[in-house]
Amino acid sequence: MSCFYLFLPGAGYHSTQKKDAYVKLCKSKCLKVSHLLKKGWGAVECVAEAVKCLEDSVLTNAGMGYNLNLSGSVECDASVMEGKKLMFGAVGAISGVKNPIEVSASLVTRQLGDKLSLGRLHPSVLVGDGAKQWAEENGIKTLETRHLITDDAQKTYQNHKRELDIVNERDANKKMKLSEQEEEKIQDTVGAIVMDTSGNIATAVSSGGISLKQPGRLGPAATYGAGCWAYNQRPGKAGVGTSTSGSGEHIMKTLLARESALSIQREDNASLGLSNCFKNNFLESEFLEEEADKLAGVLALKQNEGDTVEVLWGHTTDSMCVGYMSSSLKKPKVVMSRLPEGGIPGKSFTMSGVSI
Amino acid sequence: MSCFYLFLPGAGYHSTQKKDAYVKLCKSKCLKVSHLLKKGWGAVECVAEAVKCLEDSVLTNAGMGYNLNLSGSVECDASVMEGKKLMFGAVGAISGVKNPIEVSASLVTRQLGDKLSLGRLHPSVLVGDGAKQWAEENGIKTLETRHLITDDAQKTYQNHKRELDIVNERDANKKMKLSEQEEEKIQDTVGAIVMDTSGNIATAVSSGGISLKQPGRLGPAATYGAGCWAYNQRPGKAGVGTSTSGSGEHIMKTLLARESALSIQREDNASLGLSNCFKNNFLESEFLEEEADKLAGVLALKQNEGDTVEVLWGHTTDSMCVGYMSSSLKKPKVVMSRLPEGGIPGKSFTMSGVSI
Repeated sequence: MSCFYLFLPGAGYHSTQKKDAYVKLCKSKCLKVSHLLKKGWGAVECVAEAVKCLEDSVLTNAGMGYNLNLSGSVECDASVMEGKKLMFGAVGAISGVKNPIEVSASLVTRQLGDKLSLGRLHPSVLVGDGAKQWAEENGIKTLETRHLITDDAQKTYQNHKRELDIVNERDANKKMKLSEQEEEKIQDTVGAIVMDTSGNIATAVSSGGISLKQPGRLGPAATYGAGCWAYNQRPGKAGVGTSTSGSGEHIMKTLLARESALSIQREDNASLGLSNCFKNNFLESEFLEEEADKLAGVLALKQNEGDTVEVLWGHTTDSMCVGYMSSSLKKPKVVMSRLPEGGIPGKSFTMSGVSI
Repeated sequence: MSCFYLFLPGAGYHSTQKKDAYVKLCKSKCLKVSHLLKKGWGAVECVAEAVKCLEDSVLTNAGMGYNLNLSGSVECDASVMEGKKLMFGAVGAISGVKNPIEVSASLVTRQLGDKLSLGRLHPSVLVGDGAKQWAEENGIKTLETRHLITDDAQKTYQNHKRELDIVNERDANKKMKLSEQEEEKIQDTVGAIVMDTSGNIATAVSSGGISLKQPGRLGPAATYGAGCWAYNQRPGKAGVGTSTSGSGEHIMKTLLARESALSIQREDNASLGLSNCFKNNFLESEFLEEEADKLAGVLALKQNEGDTVEVLWGHTTDSMCVGYMSSSLKKPKVVMSRLPEGGIPGKSFTMSGVSI
């Protein structure tokens, strides 16, 4: 059985200046995870390690360097799902943990292990102080939140906050245009999909959320069915993994990870499944009727009977960066996908994929 | 247009001693909401008021008198969904708010109002300290958590904690049998469904969560698609509202409120839709393969074309209490539904309903 790993370092708007840095990041991390898979690591461990690498990069809006909330602090969301027993683990609005994805992965591992005493069930989602407390009790490294705030994140916060204060002073509601450089990070969520040598699929996402978000706001990366979905191949049913990025509330209301996975499973042709989902369950969704621009990106893996694997991605955002690698490829591939000319972010979508 | 309101003060195990108290509670609260609907209150306001009444009762596991978490503190979850614009608002692991449902209803109201400046979106889910802070800033009454802990809740906590400490000391994992009186409150989540005189449907749930839960644990009452679902009648599509109660992780993993609503909408016969969901999406769900006993109750309203309304309920728990009233009924009805003889809680389900 071949193994696959896919990186999603965010859908949104990627400036051409930073493209090279993203491509380099993806390639090096793909190689790292490649090595772990060869060593026999399982899907959950690998997907968590993949997202941890992305969290540790200051380029992404997760872990180090993520967006600050309205109070100038950091709170982030992360989740993991595995496709064998269909367990899900997430943390939401967690502060003071260097790698939130480690907590989510541990929550999954616990659910896969022994049951609790007195008939209690293992929690699948932990938020706020309780999530940090659980991390501490379970040997996951915690630190003071200020160590997670980079100079860039602090500067972006100050700029955004100043603009908000001006708007509030004017008591005006008009949308102010942020500069390209500032807007760049707003939509980013990072994610990964892994299929290990045993054919187990695991997916994960992590995010610092939108800039100036309300403290305590829970985003799609902590929401079951919204940020990631995993389902191993079963008799008569294809295996599938999805990971999403984009405008949080849009992804949550449409449960985009789950719905895109189900849509891909419903069709023999994976591309048809993903495009059906973008059209019917996202751009034309009655749950998003009030929204002018609908922004999301989906990265997906489909494992068909006979072990052919399709890797595909689609987005309504201006751009989306995707990296992938398999045991049958010599080198990792990185694609910076952009909406074709004439496409309007939030209203059009583009899709692409490869069968391996 | 007739208006309807349904109360769900929990599925689980109701002792015969407390049955009369539940029935009395339901009847009096049904009458109160009846009065508000006649005065022209909308669905969201009414459903929030209905759940607020249940939160204020020490009989229920929500608001006053709910279960304490592992640290002996209280944290609760509540959500509201409305069927016209399909907005959802929830709070999770919130402490120090007398009526969590008020915060959820306000989050819905905000989303129905003006957009935020700088292109930011209103949050739909807030958790932990951030949720309490939002409540304070928005004029919702907060108080010290200790004022929400009743003597009964404190006593139950001490008993459960003592049993847990004994189990931990023995380092054993065996399930200890709790006494009937103690077990009674474990599964309770309260909920309500309202259809106002304009035909708008709104639903809500609120819960203190399971006894001895992990601090920060997010339950179905704060999870989109799990605790409540609302969808107004549209051309070619029936209106539907659902509210769920039961074992939190089971309801979350199966997104039971959403899936039961979709299943009811798919069939001409509402009962067939609900029983399909209990069978295929719950008792035989591949997401619950690891669970021996699958515990849930669903309360549903279906508005068919021609304005006939069906009210129905089903549960796999030992019992479920339902109260309902409509503008065409003279008095509120209360049903204490129990699994028929031979039915096994967690493995069988029972269903009933009425067309009004």
